[in-house]
Amino acid sequence: MQLLHIDSSISGEQSVSRQLTASIVAHLKHTTSDLEITYRDIVAVPVPHLSPALQKRKLEALSEGEALNTEAIQIQVAGAPGDHAATLQLEQDFATINAVLHEFLAADIIVLGAPMYNFAIPSQLKAWIDCFAAPGQTFRYTKQGIEGLCGDKRIIVASSRGGFYTAPSPIAEFDHQERYLASFFGFIGISDITFVRAEGINLGDEQRQRSISAALAEVASLRVA
Amino acid sequence: MQLLHIDSSISGEQSVSRQLTASIVAHLKHTTSDLEITYRDIVAVPVPHLSPALQKRKLEALSEGEALNTEAIQIQVAGAPGDHAATLQLEQDFATINAVLHEFLAADIIVLGAPMYNFAIPSQLKAWIDCFAAPGQTFRYTKQGIEGLCGDKRIIVASSRGGFYTAPSPIAEFDHQERYLASFFGFIGISDITFVRAEGINLGDEQRQRSISAALAEVASLRVA
Repeated sequence: MQLLHIDSSISGEQSVSRQLTASIVAHLKHTTSDLEITYRDIVAVPVPHLSPALQKRKLEALSEGEALNTEAIQIQVAGAPGDHAATLQLEQDFATINAVLHEFLAADIIVLGAPMYNFAIPSQLKAWIDCFAAPGQTFRYTKQGIEGLCGDKRIIVASSRGGFYTAPSPIAEFDHQERYLASFFGFIGISDITFVRAEGINLGDEQRQRSISAALAEVASLRVA
Repeated sequence: MQLLHIDSSISGEQSVSRQLTASIVAHLKHTTSDLEITYRDIVAVPVPHLSPALQKRKLEALSEGEALNTEAIQIQVAGAPGDHAATLQLEQDFATINAVLHEFLAADIIVLGAPMYNFAIPSQLKAWIDCFAAPGQTFRYTKQGIEGLCGDKRIIVASSRGGFYTAPSPIAEFDHQERYLASFFGFIGISDITFVRAEGINLGDEQRQRSISAALAEVASLRVA
């Protein structure tokens, strides 16, 4: 069983979401015999933003079926037209977004650390998600509409937020973090999504500790892989 | 009167939101005598992601009041501890996010090109917005709660989206682009926000042209600055 562990908090050792993802992964590792873990820290090594050149490269690859196999990507700069350094950078960026896509496609379980920054996910996490807008890979067009192709995956999101945003909070409408993740992963077919949540972590040390303790208690009761 | 023009689409000359922001700015320029325009293309030159070092640098500057004046930022690497290249990069990144903040604070009108990518704003635009989470600059804490400090600004968002997301669309809940921008700018006190919207632009050439034409007609009727 493949587990993909992603962290996106900028708070380093103070990070609540990183503490929670570590706890979730440890729990699943303890309770599952054949877990293979892939880890990616998208703050330490950010996934490139989409750009005009990268989007063009990606769409060409998708239309040619090239993106099906990460290992098949060759960095071909010899004889490339124009600026070799730019071409090399583009191929490196393409290899990265393709590797991100294939790590995701290979995963049975994704443990995603997702703090709320300014009511939404970190910019690094949006760049990661943009890797999965891949028709034919994560979803497909059918006569009946769009069909998600990732229905066999399970996602556990470690969510941390400074205030209290869970409905019926008066600021629930400001939540474009958990609600966004639910929308996007739902779109690609994932219905098995769990939020392990620590809220109100900027409302004083006592509240912070209480919220972390409650979230860690939830981790202990997560169903095994 | 200061106008800040921001583009965040990766579609270059094919971009609908870029076409719309250009039209909006031309309209306001034509109808306002003393308009000074600042332009920033955050795809051509992305604003840095928040990072542990950058966040620390920003919080220190805010607590010392240093961020009040863009020109006051000195790139001081001589004698800096540790890696000079990293220190230089950090100071450059800090100067960029500070410049972005002060361009925004100086603006009376912001014309913001904001396409929807995967139900949310581009990652580059999130990095831009993260520059404005500046207590004492864009909002402040009071005994009555949080007070937005940008109530004197007007924002016109050029919104482009592949499908139809405006309520009562069945997919209105997937809109974490316009609804997010309304949440964030509302938080910092901006109530004068207008969306000039081209929807359904991926639903065939005819629909695309119809949507663009309707949006351009809206531009012509925008109230003058």
